Amino acid sequence: MEADKAPRVLAVASHVVSGYVGNKIAVFALQSLGYDVAALNTVQFSNHTGYGQWTGTKVSAQEITDLYNGLCHSYLDDFDMMLSGYIPSAEAVVAVGNMARELKEKNKGAPSDFFWVLDPVMGDNGKIYVAEDVVPAYKGLIEYADLILPNQFEAELLSEVKIVDMESLKSAIQALHDRYRIPHVIITSVNFSRPGQSPSHLSVVGSSMASAGKPRFFQITFPSIDCYFCGTGDMFGALITARMREAVRAVAGLIDRPSWLSDDSVTGIHLPLARATEKVLASMHEVLAKTRDGMQSVVERTKAGLTEEQRASGTGEQQIESKASELRLVQNLESLRSPSVKFEARPI
Amino acid sequence: MEADKAPRVLAVASHVVSGYVGNKIAVFALQSLGYDVAALNTVQFSNHTGYGQWTGTKVSAQEITDLYNGLCHSYLDDFDMMLSGYIPSAEAVVAVGNMARELKEKNKGAPSDFFWVLDPVMGDNGKIYVAEDVVPAYKGLIEYADLILPNQFEAELLSEVKIVDMESLKSAIQALHDRYRIPHVIITSVNFSRPGQSPSHLSVVGSSMASAGKPRFFQITFPSIDCYFCGTGDMFGALITARMREAVRAVAGLIDRPSWLSDDSVTGIHLPLARATEKVLASMHEVLAKTRDGMQSVVERTKAGLTEEQRASGTGEQQIESKASELRLVQNLESLRSPSVKFEARPI
Repeated sequence: MEADKAPRVLAVASHVVSGYVGNKIAVFALQSLGYDVAALNTVQFSNHTGYGQWTGTKVSAQEITDLYNGLCHSYLDDFDMMLSGYIPSAEAVVAVGNMARELKEKNKGAPSDFFWVLDPVMGDNGKIYVAEDVVPAYKGLIEYADLILPNQFEAELLSEVKIVDMESLKSAIQALHDRYRIPHVIITSVNFSRPGQSPSHLSVVGSSMASAGKPRFFQITFPSIDCYFCGTGDMFGALITARMREAVRAVAGLIDRPSWLSDDSVTGIHLPLARATEKVLASMHEVLAKTRDGMQSVVERTKAGLTEEQRASGTGEQQIESKASELRLVQNLESLRSPSVKFEARPI
Repeated sequence: MEADKAPRVLAVASHVVSGYVGNKIAVFALQSLGYDVAALNTVQFSNHTGYGQWTGTKVSAQEITDLYNGLCHSYLDDFDMMLSGYIPSAEAVVAVGNMARELKEKNKGAPSDFFWVLDPVMGDNGKIYVAEDVVPAYKGLIEYADLILPNQFEAELLSEVKIVDMESLKSAIQALHDRYRIPHVIITSVNFSRPGQSPSHLSVVGSSMASAGKPRFFQITFPSIDCYFCGTGDMFGALITARMREAVRAVAGLIDRPSWLSDDSVTGIHLPLARATEKVLASMHEVLAKTRDGMQSVVERTKAGLTEEQRASGTGEQQIESKASELRLVQNLESLRSPSVKFEARPI
């Protein structure tokens, strides 16, 4: 951490009262790593939507803009970084984009270049789960971001390249660098196995472009945990925001350069982006493994606490499963701060 | 922490995008001490109101009730504790009270008694800063809480005893035990100096009632830091929630008793409430001292970053001062977790 000042991050994502997705992950993860986090919550829901039922309200595009203006008038817009996750409508995506562009302009250069990490939350596994007009709204914004974190399906939507193997994945990343001039890309879940198959390992593939727009690829493979967790993408986003800045600061002068882009002489596996991703995946693997190990006891405890009435109605399996698979962040602070497992970036 | 389960706390308070008051303090402080925190935000403001300007919206009583119902339907209402802070209207105070009473009923007994820490946020220094009807709303609820944390002025409002010296303060606490049967009370800022005088030391005075409703007093005195900080009451509330449970768990069987009330043989300075308060004040003193030490550099950095336009308008002193005095929680995690200074409870 800088001697005097904790780096300031603006995190724009959803808030759930109970559990861990969106800003509920981002705020804790970034604070644990020493960041001063401003949290602009795009929704307040009782719990994440994977439970199949929830209550709460969404924030409008106008409210997002108002909150931003409030920050500006109180001299609180001196952010070093921004992380954006789930945004509930196309209008709100545009509002967040305007905010990010203004912040980039204001906080350019000294002492470090403003850096926007954008997770273009649109869908997964071949399905769009936001309003259709959110997709073109994101396409209009990607060029202003510094690092984007699409999953495989979102990378297809943005690049318009169908991804079926490593070659087409590389073409998609090349297309993202070419079309949007986006400096850094990580595809956060690469899986070429057939639907229904459970792969034993998963990969992420990343690239930071060289000056001619040429990609510099790296790949990191890690064991898959056969269990469905919500919030893994949000956890990746929060941790990569923290770790990217750390990895960049380890290279003299790099943090002052536009978009923190390394010299052309640096190859894929030696990128700060690769170093950061290695550390993020190590933390995630530990937290997910420990979450899985604790699931059964949550199921049992919750079932033991049901009232006669709840027991008689016989429903609630989906809610209890969702509760049991909430990420165990608070219990595993050390895994966030200094994970012990190691994964290594490889060339493709 | 319990072997398998992080204790679950429901924190009901305000949320600010930037800075540290309300739930922005409570969530981080409690999570840092190993608690699984559900955060029900009663407002989302850009920054705290001490800046003199802010934007954002308040949550209605209906929205609070809806969020609570959402939690119940997802089997997420198995809370061990609740902490309530700023609530924006009398209707919302009643909604929070209903929620607390239901949770107390549901989570009674096994494995530990549900415990509600209520900070009756109404005013300070002789001035009410909430709607007038919030005062009777709180008066109707105090009897359901386990621990209340009024400042000296709020203690006067609730007890209807004018506090001018230690004797009248003791009468006020006795009146709170008598009138509301409230088991634990801490008056969080005791100051008998004349208005305008800056005392070198401040006190908190607490009591846990014995079985006959008799108070058991203790007092802790600590050096005053001559500087105005927002959020100190919220920080006290968050930390006492965590530390009270720890202190109670150190006494065999105590956590299973209604309202965690110690045997009559335990005197004031030996109460778990006294142990907890000592630890809270140690953390607070360190964080406040470090915040004060860093203020000048925030003022200078913010002024250096002003645009020509901002500089010409010549305003903003209040905002810049407020920004500089935001509590430095993230930078001082160790002071939250294991403070080194020590303050000791004394009899009165």
